[in-house]
Amino acid sequence: MATKITGTGSYIPITIERNEDFHKHEFLNQDGSSIKQQNDVIIEKFKAITGIGERRYVENHLNTSDIAFFAAQKAIENSQVNQEELDYIIVGHNYGDVKHNTEQSDTVPSIASRVKHLLGIKNPKCVAYDILFGCPGWNEGVIQANAFIKAGIAKKCLVIGAETLSRVVDKHDRDSMIYSDGAGAAIIEETSETGGIIAHQSATYALDEAHFIYFGETNNPAITDQRRYIKMYGRKIYEFALNNVPPAMKSCLDKSGYNIGDLKKILIHQANEKMDEAIVQRFYKLYNMDMPKDIMPMTINKLGNSSVATVPTLYDLILNGKLDGHTINKGDLIMFASVGAGMNINAIVYKC
Amino acid sequence: MATKITGTGSYIPITIERNEDFHKHEFLNQDGSSIKQQNDVIIEKFKAITGIGERRYVENHLNTSDIAFFAAQKAIENSQVNQEELDYIIVGHNYGDVKHNTEQSDTVPSIASRVKHLLGIKNPKCVAYDILFGCPGWNEGVIQANAFIKAGIAKKCLVIGAETLSRVVDKHDRDSMIYSDGAGAAIIEETSETGGIIAHQSATYALDEAHFIYFGETNNPAITDQRRYIKMYGRKIYEFALNNVPPAMKSCLDKSGYNIGDLKKILIHQANEKMDEAIVQRFYKLYNMDMPKDIMPMTINKLGNSSVATVPTLYDLILNGKLDGHTINKGDLIMFASVGAGMNINAIVYKC
Repeated sequence: MATKITGTGSYIPITIERNEDFHKHEFLNQDGSSIKQQNDVIIEKFKAITGIGERRYVENHLNTSDIAFFAAQKAIENSQVNQEELDYIIVGHNYGDVKHNTEQSDTVPSIASRVKHLLGIKNPKCVAYDILFGCPGWNEGVIQANAFIKAGIAKKCLVIGAETLSRVVDKHDRDSMIYSDGAGAAIIEETSETGGIIAHQSATYALDEAHFIYFGETNNPAITDQRRYIKMYGRKIYEFALNNVPPAMKSCLDKSGYNIGDLKKILIHQANEKMDEAIVQRFYKLYNMDMPKDIMPMTINKLGNSSVATVPTLYDLILNGKLDGHTINKGDLIMFASVGAGMNINAIVYKC
Repeated sequence: MATKITGTGSYIPITIERNEDFHKHEFLNQDGSSIKQQNDVIIEKFKAITGIGERRYVENHLNTSDIAFFAAQKAIENSQVNQEELDYIIVGHNYGDVKHNTEQSDTVPSIASRVKHLLGIKNPKCVAYDILFGCPGWNEGVIQANAFIKAGIAKKCLVIGAETLSRVVDKHDRDSMIYSDGAGAAIIEETSETGGIIAHQSATYALDEAHFIYFGETNNPAITDQRRYIKMYGRKIYEFALNNVPPAMKSCLDKSGYNIGDLKKILIHQANEKMDEAIVQRFYKLYNMDMPKDIMPMTINKLGNSSVATVPTLYDLILNGKLDGHTINKGDLIMFASVGAGMNINAIVYKC
């Protein structure tokens, strides 16, 4: 018996926001002071560190729950599960539905209820709830689905990660260039096969780290309303992630009983290219190895950081042959890993 | 082996908002038209149906995460658990932290991360996440904690329900008188005892019902901003609850293997006194019985409807001898039941 991913789907918004589109923005430091460099230098440096050349924004009429639904539809179709047989719909997100040109998060009903409504699922025993766990929310939803299957209260679960960060960015903050919109989904099922979820590991660092990613005011002191935006202490997060993600990944792999050489791919949250590379390099260093070429497929260059959506989207793209140079085959051992607001970290060792 | 509640705590905000305090409000119908009755008649009718005479509001400097923390502290102290040994902190809420005189929900980091931070828990393996599941969110958190224990990934969990509905009410809506603030918490542990959680049942009705409770505009057409508030279709909810909650409760009790006569108390979400009574009466009618006297302890008269907080607060008050005429003793069979936004329903049969 194994808990396996039997179908995947993703939704990549059609609006491409290129780095050039930020040239006219007035970027300011957090204290409101102006930045000495010109925007072209700022953007070039940004690109060099994060790897992000463009990102996706949802169209004005769409919300997080809509794109969650689009990804869910595809995952259901791909797995050929009967949607009326789903025991759970679990949606990882962080800001709910924030309509275009508004500032309030709408979380009632839950995004999962909205998705269930849009899917037209009748069966009331399909329990729909949202999980808030920062960027690692989709991974954590998968871990929860696995727990429900192991506890005997579920057999088939739909787990979605969806976010529209374009609705909560401060245009006067350079970090606004990181954020993107997207949705990814997977069907998690109890199967008679072998493999599936072999091990998982989760952690919450909240003593000093709880507010490394937070909701804060604009960098523009001329704007005096109370509106708040996604904000982060980038350097602190970088150091935190480098110190804590590699050992969490190692702990998860060691728990699985497999060797480092067995790992075929690491699907890590698309947070920042340089940071992701440094994390995976350190992970291999813990085994006295160099990071293998092509171990870490990346989408951040074209898709940016869409929070909970990056990992399921990446997996879906590879399975569908849409990420050049990367394939995942039946029997491959892979790892899903993530880090984000909370600060939360998780990893899953999965045999396809 | 049993999953048991080993400690409880609650926080009841100190500011009492009495029905009289609504006399000066300008109540309007949903379409913006004026209401023919005078406010004293409106308030009297409101009291007759809901049973609510007063409700509690948090002080201006407090947020949902603060009162969640207060309740959590008490539950930890009451259970004498070492907080560093907690495997999970699960917080049920629906609107996050909405600061006084602001309109945005702040959900990053999660309320659970904030609580963990405030508690000063160092252990990163204590995983903190939020669940959005409407008013039944605390019950559902308990069901999830039980699943994690059964799946072998947890032994001790802190489950909190906290909400500050005073921050999302429309003063021009009569329904604003229903909503209250509060927090309740419990420690859920794997124990060597018998009893504990015997059976549970959850459901999400989203096909026609998803938007029965929603985020909507003020009833006052003179206010033209985009701010939205908690809103409900009261009559639809009443009918929905009466049709669907009693059979869910019956299904849960029947699954438990116990008889209706074994039930000592039903701790139902404090939504509306008349509705709660009608639900429990119908539940007994399914067994061809009349509702026993004193089966259904109520706090709504003094505490209003504080969403996810009502059930754990009610349980905590009874265990602490603070609800006149009601006691729960070791070995008693009780039921927790709830219904709310989603629309979600759940029930738990629990042997103390």
